[in-house]
Amino acid sequence: MIIAVPRERGARERRVALIPETVAKLVKADHAVLVEEGAGIASGFSDQQYRDAGATVVAGSKSDWMRDADIAVSVQVIDPSAQDLPYAHLRAGAVAIGMLGPLSTDVEVFKALRDRNLTAFSMDAIPRISRAQSMDVLSSMSTVAGYRAALIGAERLPRFFPLLMTAAGTITPAKVLILGAGVAGLQAIATTHRLGAVVQAFDTRPVVREQVESLGASFLALEVQSQQTQDGYAQALAEDAHQAEVNLLSKPVAEADVVITTALIPGRPAPILVTEEMVKSMRPGAVIVDLAAEAGGNCALSRPGETVVTDNGVTIEAPLNIASQLAPHASQLYSRNVYNFLTHLFAMGLADKALNLDDEIVARTMIVHDGTITHEALKNRINA
Amino acid sequence: MIIAVPRERGARERRVALIPETVAKLVKADHAVLVEEGAGIASGFSDQQYRDAGATVVAGSKSDWMRDADIAVSVQVIDPSAQDLPYAHLRAGAVAIGMLGPLSTDVEVFKALRDRNLTAFSMDAIPRISRAQSMDVLSSMSTVAGYRAALIGAERLPRFFPLLMTAAGTITPAKVLILGAGVAGLQAIATTHRLGAVVQAFDTRPVVREQVESLGASFLALEVQSQQTQDGYAQALAEDAHQAEVNLLSKPVAEADVVITTALIPGRPAPILVTEEMVKSMRPGAVIVDLAAEAGGNCALSRPGETVVTDNGVTIEAPLNIASQLAPHASQLYSRNVYNFLTHLFAMGLADKALNLDDEIVARTMIVHDGTITHEALKNRINA
Repeated sequence: MIIAVPRERGARERRVALIPETVAKLVKADHAVLVEEGAGIASGFSDQQYRDAGATVVAGSKSDWMRDADIAVSVQVIDPSAQDLPYAHLRAGAVAIGMLGPLSTDVEVFKALRDRNLTAFSMDAIPRISRAQSMDVLSSMSTVAGYRAALIGAERLPRFFPLLMTAAGTITPAKVLILGAGVAGLQAIATTHRLGAVVQAFDTRPVVREQVESLGASFLALEVQSQQTQDGYAQALAEDAHQAEVNLLSKPVAEADVVITTALIPGRPAPILVTEEMVKSMRPGAVIVDLAAEAGGNCALSRPGETVVTDNGVTIEAPLNIASQLAPHASQLYSRNVYNFLTHLFAMGLADKALNLDDEIVARTMIVHDGTITHEALKNRINA
Repeated sequence: MIIAVPRERGARERRVALIPETVAKLVKADHAVLVEEGAGIASGFSDQQYRDAGATVVAGSKSDWMRDADIAVSVQVIDPSAQDLPYAHLRAGAVAIGMLGPLSTDVEVFKALRDRNLTAFSMDAIPRISRAQSMDVLSSMSTVAGYRAALIGAERLPRFFPLLMTAAGTITPAKVLILGAGVAGLQAIATTHRLGAVVQAFDTRPVVREQVESLGASFLALEVQSQQTQDGYAQALAEDAHQAEVNLLSKPVAEADVVITTALIPGRPAPILVTEEMVKSMRPGAVIVDLAAEAGGNCALSRPGETVVTDNGVTIEAPLNIASQLAPHASQLYSRNVYNFLTHLFAMGLADKALNLDDEIVARTMIVHDGTITHEALKNRINA
């Protein structure tokens, strides 16, 4: 099939959907790959590297080459705010694959996909089942985010992370508090612990205690608990339980040098775990890294995309598109996830126009098909 | 005695010479400590913390309180560029202690100290002998610098440091090259190795191989070698030997993700170890952290105090006063070093006006005394 890789246009987006390594594998499997000129530059891959991998590098208006493609692969929605419709240059029946955000992206994008009779798969809807692990972009990108958050915290803190025993006496290690022990939280624990900090982690799910402790952190066991959803997320807490959680976090936050927050609830604003009062109780020089910035943030004073320094000297970082800060490796992981997903789609009959719609991975990632919105939550958003 | 701690005025200077912990120890030993209002703010210590430790917080013109002091303790030279003379407010016979830079500071500063009959001790001249280790500010500040350089390298690199084994395949670890394995280099090795990078280190002194290897790095053994000076520095290399060194470093530099350079030769411009050609051979996204910026830099393209991004996408950081980026801990270490030095001076008779000038620590740190320049190299600079 003919697979097109457009250059990403999203703000702060530095990733590319397919890296040369993956292109070579697709070409070897008899696919043709069209890569828009400069698509890989921001993540460190030159046009020449794509040519060497067997891609055709294309330039000029998308209408000249996107209509040739059977499949367009991207990181974000292509041209979500373009004057013309998103994906306007794909021919009817073609397939769009990317992190399309069925729970958050403007529904007009999906109506356009539907009305133009495209098939769309959203990589962020990959089910969290064993056989789909190798396609799980949310896990990949959370790994990147957790690592970056740890480094941002260490770099902004005007103190040492590790214990130091010097001729001038001892420096005590930094205290790091991680809120939320999903993939990002666990990676942040691993990285801050590696750097020598004393790490505590909090999660509402008691089931993660063992993982937290195996990484060298202590688990903050609070009486508030929630169950895991089928996809491994924490369920939202009832209002009184949430208040108890906030009360119980006050002391650990006040004592922390670095707080990294990672609490996300799919399709909903992020819960506020670090209140304004808590920030005021922190020491000058302390740092908060809020990984929930895309969903509004876990800290009441976070300003997504900006750095805030409070009157009492606390630095609050709320990075947007943090994965793009590690674009070469984030692209590598994403590209491998997409390759595994494409391979699965081909095995399920995509190339033969006989796609097995009953396969769990196909069924849960497909959001638009044959003139219909097929994703339940997206359907509800459009009808709401 | 009465010990005064002025607020530092140097550009980028965030440290303070004495922190409240040390003030409390001096007060307990029956000294009086005068701290200029706001002296500790930039390193996270409030005036109230100084008062609680027993200091008198003073404000207004220095002439109102500096003349009461027997000793003035600072990080840098007080008011080196003031309209009036540096240390003009100290009375004749008083003592000035700080990192005064006898090999680099404008000689007019020292002439003024001499002409006003002050006694000056330079903390950066502490001999590198066992009994003076607890006073060794150059070691303390190099520890800070090496740690910071490692973090800056990791934070600027758009790639992971550690090996990652994920469901989407393996991410290979970053390659870090450390040039110079003194205190800063060894700390940079320890920190980058902790973060999971594969670390190589180069030094002209074969004697440091064991230390390098014990920290988990491999030692780049080149045929060029130099001996250690009495103070543990590498001796300057002859011109042809230096060229051989540059030739031999070309390949390791080209293959590195992060290069951290720490080569300093006291009183001389830093040697160029990373040439323009080497920088051009590096990969896009690679990072150089040049710790020799204060002495001009070890990289030909470094601009001290600035960040350079080259046409081929290499980021070069050449931070000035890097210790101030970790001001709370850098001040803590400096303050403990000064305390140990003061205690030694008192034991050597400073308070009784009967200072033992034969003591090696006294003799080597004293640079001005009794209307005379007593430091040999400084004397040579003034007579040159």
